Amino acid sequence: MIQNSTTAFASDIKRQRACPASNASALGTSDLSPTWLNLPAAPISQAARESARQRQTQLTKPPGSLGRLEDIAIAFAGWQGTPLPTLDHCRVRVFAADHGIGADGVSAFPQAVTAEMIGNFARGGAAISVLARHQGADFRVVNLGTARPLPPDISGHPAVTDLQLAPGSANIRTGAAMSPALLAAALDAGAAEILAGDRPQLFIGGEMGIGNTATTAALACALLDLAVDDTLGTGTGVDLAGLARKRAAVARALERHRGKCTTPLETLRRLGGLEIAALTGAYVAAAQRGVPSLVDGYICTAAALLACRLNPGVRDWLLFAHHSTEPGHRHLLDALRARPLVNLGMRLGEGSGAAAALPLLVAACALHREMATFAEAGVSSGD
Amino acid sequence: MIQNSTTAFASDIKRQRACPASNASALGTSDLSPTWLNLPAAPISQAARESARQRQTQLTKPPGSLGRLEDIAIAFAGWQGTPLPTLDHCRVRVFAADHGIGADGVSAFPQAVTAEMIGNFARGGAAISVLARHQGADFRVVNLGTARPLPPDISGHPAVTDLQLAPGSANIRTGAAMSPALLAAALDAGAAEILAGDRPQLFIGGEMGIGNTATTAALACALLDLAVDDTLGTGTGVDLAGLARKRAAVARALERHRGKCTTPLETLRRLGGLEIAALTGAYVAAAQRGVPSLVDGYICTAAALLACRLNPGVRDWLLFAHHSTEPGHRHLLDALRARPLVNLGMRLGEGSGAAAALPLLVAACALHREMATFAEAGVSSGD
Repeated sequence: MIQNSTTAFASDIKRQRACPASNASALGTSDLSPTWLNLPAAPISQAARESARQRQTQLTKPPGSLGRLEDIAIAFAGWQGTPLPTLDHCRVRVFAADHGIGADGVSAFPQAVTAEMIGNFARGGAAISVLARHQGADFRVVNLGTARPLPPDISGHPAVTDLQLAPGSANIRTGAAMSPALLAAALDAGAAEILAGDRPQLFIGGEMGIGNTATTAALACALLDLAVDDTLGTGTGVDLAGLARKRAAVARALERHRGKCTTPLETLRRLGGLEIAALTGAYVAAAQRGVPSLVDGYICTAAALLACRLNPGVRDWLLFAHHSTEPGHRHLLDALRARPLVNLGMRLGEGSGAAAALPLLVAACALHREMATFAEAGVSSGD
Repeated sequence: MIQNSTTAFASDIKRQRACPASNASALGTSDLSPTWLNLPAAPISQAARESARQRQTQLTKPPGSLGRLEDIAIAFAGWQGTPLPTLDHCRVRVFAADHGIGADGVSAFPQAVTAEMIGNFARGGAAISVLARHQGADFRVVNLGTARPLPPDISGHPAVTDLQLAPGSANIRTGAAMSPALLAAALDAGAAEILAGDRPQLFIGGEMGIGNTATTAALACALLDLAVDDTLGTGTGVDLAGLARKRAAVARALERHRGKCTTPLETLRRLGGLEIAALTGAYVAAAQRGVPSLVDGYICTAAALLACRLNPGVRDWLLFAHHSTEPGHRHLLDALRARPLVNLGMRLGEGSGAAAALPLLVAACALHREMATFAEAGVSSGD
């Protein structure tokens, strides 16, 4: 039943996405809102959740003693519409893009690293590549747009989708990050990664983009009405002079766009980045297709907040993986009433925190399916 | 080099254990101290740690951005004496025993559950069985002594070592939990699980014993000079009347043994349990053989504290897996200056929290070995 209804949703999304977004964007207005974003999230089976909850009380353990692993199994039951969910098919997509602000010396790394890391993702040497491989996840990297085009061997690598929608987003210090058409294309590109192929049982999004903790700080300030210093962190590890440049650039960007970030989509268009837009589109489309997402760290959580502001039903399809050490992350998590699973002092991005936490979800589902009940095991139940 | 020296240590332990502990215990004294407990922990290779630390700075990520996963990889390098440690061979042992206090109505479950759960562990239906199976760990359950002997099909099950040293420990409310000889036998039984066969790369100990959160509360109070209410929790989920019985029983036990818990070993003998003693012996022997242990929750942490009090070098061979919801756990962790990896609201025991956290250690070693360096990947390094 759940299967059918979500298939119908997926068709709706595909149909609506077929209407060219460029019609609206050709108007040059900034209130373009791709209509598929508003389609409802897939329904969650309360009956399956309740059956799973009952089963948890019958497994050979004190009730509640598996803590959050019990909640996770029950959540997957509701998402999959079955009392005995499985978790074998996880899709991991790293969205990469450059940021105009990345050329302002706000990062410890030169802008060229975005493109170089796409090659590293593809060849399997990056953290997320290692984790995805070890966990048997379906892994690809999607290039939304780097400052310079990728070299042919990377552009054509089988693990890379090289869209190159633009040479990165524009510098938010001096203008809007994206045109309405570019925003729509980036949102669509994220959704396309969800809608393609068989429905996965979990989506993990990651990101790569030199300068994107600066962009995210600007987004967090605008979305949550925070001061720059509440959100500013060292990102990849910028030094004190770089941090001062980063603070100045973010403050200048906020000044530049003050009063104009009137909707979540307009905030994303003005202050975001291509990979952040793709993540936002992916989280919305995943909820619509009935795919839960395990949200990674700072940048992904900003995209998740945008997705929930655009479509509040998305929230019920999100799990949060880890606490990043970036100071702004906590504010985004609080706004989402999100309690991440682990706190390991990570701040790498790429989806690496989510991929590190993935085995906890796999364990939760395995315990739920495979543990014996008191009756099956001939164990006396409690009081 | 490390390999050779730890093999030598293992031989020392085996030789010293061959001297019958029963000679000393036959004297009826309570200051019996099996001499092998005092053998030093294996050395840790500082050179391998330093090489691993260097490698972490060269991997394609901002330095430090993998947080605690970096520390874990460096720790395994030191333990294994190689800059590129692996983690494929994990040994999981659940030590089970009954407690005299378990017949006092201090638990939500009847005492028979200890023996029943041994069957469930063996047949693969318990939480730790599921987790160990999914993670390819070497798994067995060791029965130190249940109130009634195990049925033949469980006693002879290939996944069970049925020692049945005694029909459980004596009731600490009215006397010492164990005789010196029984304590020595339980410590030895734990060590034997470490010394047998090829050296594993990690040890996870678990426990099962109705009443053992009461016993552990008494141990924690005696070891850390705490009030009963600082350590008392609901264990498997006892009701209010049961909690009152538990509080009274623990307070009575502490009164009974006051002034007599003069050494860590005597505290363990008077207030502990057979499975807690086996865990203590296992943690000491593991450190001596050069095997790190991933410590589970409340009861295991009490055993780990005892192991470190008996032999301070053990501490360098311990990782702590998770925060239990049992209130006394925090005090034990603080005493060990231990910061567990995850906090998932678990309180099941069995080693389940450690087995749930195990994939984080596997991921840490995989990332350390398999990520590309900046030079290998042709990625520009930072400032």
